[in-house]
Amino acid sequence: MTRPIFFLTDFGLADTYVGVVKAVILSIAPDAQVVDLTHDVPPQDVRAGAFALLTAVPYLPEDAVVLAVVDPGVGTGRRPIAVQAAGRTYVGPDNGLLSWAIRADLTPQPPLLRGEGEQAVVLDRPRFWRPTVSATFHGRDLFGPVAAHLARGVPLAEVGSPCSEIQTLPFPAVRRTIDDDGRVVTAQGEIVHVDRFGNLISNLTASDLPDEPTVAVAGRTISELALHFQATGGASKGERLIALIGSAGLLEIAVPNGSAAAALGIGVGASVTVTRESAEAPGC
Amino acid sequence: MTRPIFFLTDFGLADTYVGVVKAVILSIAPDAQVVDLTHDVPPQDVRAGAFALLTAVPYLPEDAVVLAVVDPGVGTGRRPIAVQAAGRTYVGPDNGLLSWAIRADLTPQPPLLRGEGEQAVVLDRPRFWRPTVSATFHGRDLFGPVAAHLARGVPLAEVGSPCSEIQTLPFPAVRRTIDDDGRVVTAQGEIVHVDRFGNLISNLTASDLPDEPTVAVAGRTISELALHFQATGGASKGERLIALIGSAGLLEIAVPNGSAAAALGIGVGASVTVTRESAEAPGC
Amino acid sequence: MTRPIFFLTDFGLADTYVGVVKAVILSIAPDAQVVDLTHDVPPQDVRAGAFALLTAVPYLPEDAVVLAVVDPGVGTGRRPIAVQAAGRTYVGPDNGLLSWAIRADLTPQPPLLRGEGEQAVVLDRPRFWRPTVSATFHGRDLFGPVAAHLARGVPLAEVGSPCSEIQTLPFPAVRRTIDDDGRVVTAQGEIVHVDRFGNLISNLTASDLPDEPTVAVAGRTISELALHFQATGGASKGERLIALIGSAGLLEIAVPNGSAAAALGIGVGASVTVTRESAEAPGC
Repeated sequence: MTRPIFFLTDFGLADTYVGVVKAVILSIAPDAQVVDLTHDVPPQDVRAGAFALLTAVPYLPEDAVVLAVVDPGVGTGRRPIAVQAAGRTYVGPDNGLLSWAIRADLTPQPPLLRGEGEQAVVLDRPRFWRPTVSATFHGRDLFGPVAAHLARGVPLAEVGSPCSEIQTLPFPAVRRTIDDDGRVVTAQGEIVHVDRFGNLISNLTASDLPDEPTVAVAGRTISELALHFQATGGASKGERLIALIGSAGLLEIAVPNGSAAAALGIGVGASVTVTRESAEAPGC
Repeated sequence: MTRPIFFLTDFGLADTYVGVVKAVILSIAPDAQVVDLTHDVPPQDVRAGAFALLTAVPYLPEDAVVLAVVDPGVGTGRRPIAVQAAGRTYVGPDNGLLSWAIRADLTPQPPLLRGEGEQAVVLDRPRFWRPTVSATFHGRDLFGPVAAHLARGVPLAEVGSPCSEIQTLPFPAVRRTIDDDGRVVTAQGEIVHVDRFGNLISNLTASDLPDEPTVAVAGRTISELALHFQATGGASKGERLIALIGSAGLLEIAVPNGSAAAALGIGVGASVTVTRESAEAPGC
Repeated sequence: MTRPIFFLTDFGLADTYVGVVKAVILSIAPDAQVVDLTHDVPPQDVRAGAFALLTAVPYLPEDAVVLAVVDPGVGTGRRPIAVQAAGRTYVGPDNGLLSWAIRADLTPQPPLLRGEGEQAVVLDRPRFWRPTVSATFHGRDLFGPVAAHLARGVPLAEVGSPCSEIQTLPFPAVRRTIDDDGRVVTAQGEIVHVDRFGNLISNLTASDLPDEPTVAVAGRTISELALHFQATGGASKGERLIALIGSAGLLEIAVPNGSAAAALGIGVGASVTVTRESAEAPGC
């Protein structure tokens, strides 16, 4: 059975680029299912693409082929790669785009290849590409065809030569202060994504947070962490700022039925600090 | 054979939310066809989602599973439901979103369950959900999985407990005045949708209208009802305002090859009045 | 096996129009694969739709059915047609929309039917349509159903009556001056498409260009033709204007990792002149 292909790019949907890649895939693997993750990654924003993959990958079927193309280095020396990790196979440019998703599959540490069952190849076998490869559209001419062959069952080791290391993108660091008892006092992170609803999604996970957390963001303080969204029942539309662990498992600032991004006037890169409430008392 | 799933949300396409729901569906029903109706319902606009479903449902295959998620009440007490009506099965929140589509399937009256072959269940069987259900993303964790199981052939009665009533959304009322002979003199409705082309679509059907209708909208009068679009031949681009019964069976204000919304500067909620032409004479 | 359908319109994705056409197709051909080329052709812009098809068609599977609807003349006398060329079958309005793609399949000349294996029919057989055909939505009621029947294997000759000619759209002309030795001195074309990345795509092919080309556009001169994008390595983000033969085989003005459209402030219709560098010397 043909493996399903999950497809993410910064190509947008206004041009035919996405459709043409699918056409090329179906020419090689006529019964492939190609599912769009998103094609609205901001142009050339590798980090935004990596984040989108990171949050999507845990939900993909175990035999998924992930085709991801956000590729500012197309036509330069960057390598095309394919990586196998936790059963799934990733195809894309070696610019860090894939690295957070692979990490999510494997370990909370930065991606280190040669984990259990993990392998990577550099795509250097033109027989799996289109006969002519353009300088600017490797999604159509190289990555798409390779993904199609992998979907049909060609083993990873056949489509390229083994490589021992891939580029990784540093995940935005969380800075934490710890008290003498080893407990978290403050955790400082940043907004890494703003979604369609205006939810501000940070890089902080539940395990980063202190007990009795108070969230400071954009000069505002949110003293109640609505770990369960239900806690917000009764809020009127657009009125109330809340913090919660969102569907991606990350601390998220939201306005129920409104836009936190609009309410606070901030976006990606804004700082978020979470402080243990009782930690403030000693300061008096 | 797996039933096709028709999918409508307010998730947008910029995030991976839609792709992730499809991934979850395909993990359960690998050969399901998932067809997007639209994901651009304005955030939390249940009424706009209900209207989109209403106009789409008559064209869906008879065995369709309809998965619809516009869900401002996620994480509160609103019930998740599935409804069977006229062969099709609907899955979504019990907030009225599904009610107009179900009505279109059944009768011109507001939806009353227990019609012929009609049944509803509250989705209260976690074995058809993802193992962990987040507070904010029931499309991924509950509705998507249930739709996938239904698509694979699980009967409605298995995925939840019977319920006798679902929430309905009042369809915007048409006010009509009738003369002594029982004939319609005026019918007053409103714009319920503006489409991509700037067409202004009202809640008035052909049967609501008087004979020899004159349409008044935004201070303008349209004396010719182009029941057939052909009647507009010869109009220059962007010049001529017409009224017609559009492809959804509803009275629509249009500018051939232009935007009526832009020409009139109005949108959803604007009033539309249709008057019998001969009715105006007695007033002199 | 059901043929895949490639689908292009100006319907946008905010309404359910695209989803409804797919629903109608799947009602007729339940196992059809329907692949979106794009639905963001500007409303009623036949020329933009024709260009999108032209660049996509060479990559479609050989048995593809192409369903294209950009149809300002819907409801007027324009004919619905289907055309077979180079194995692929096209379905859409006879307004020139299909003509460039058909040309690309066949010859560098304007489309002339009755080429090898080429045939066209006027869609005049209502048994292949929906029972009721609206005045304004032939994608749903006529073109979509016909495409579905063709995908299922109904021969072209069955869905309509033969026609000997279809409407063609003039491809924007390239003006060239030639010296006494028959060599190109200047080639003047225009921007025909601006893509999502701000790349300015012209109507000039590599064979139109003089040797040692210098490109003049928007008052700027680009003296280096980066026939291979690699030649641009080392450019900083957003800094450098280049000209290259892009992935569609056409001369393209680009800013690596930036937007040429934004940098130059121009769009579709802007003039592009390419001059032989050595040709300028004699003028001194």
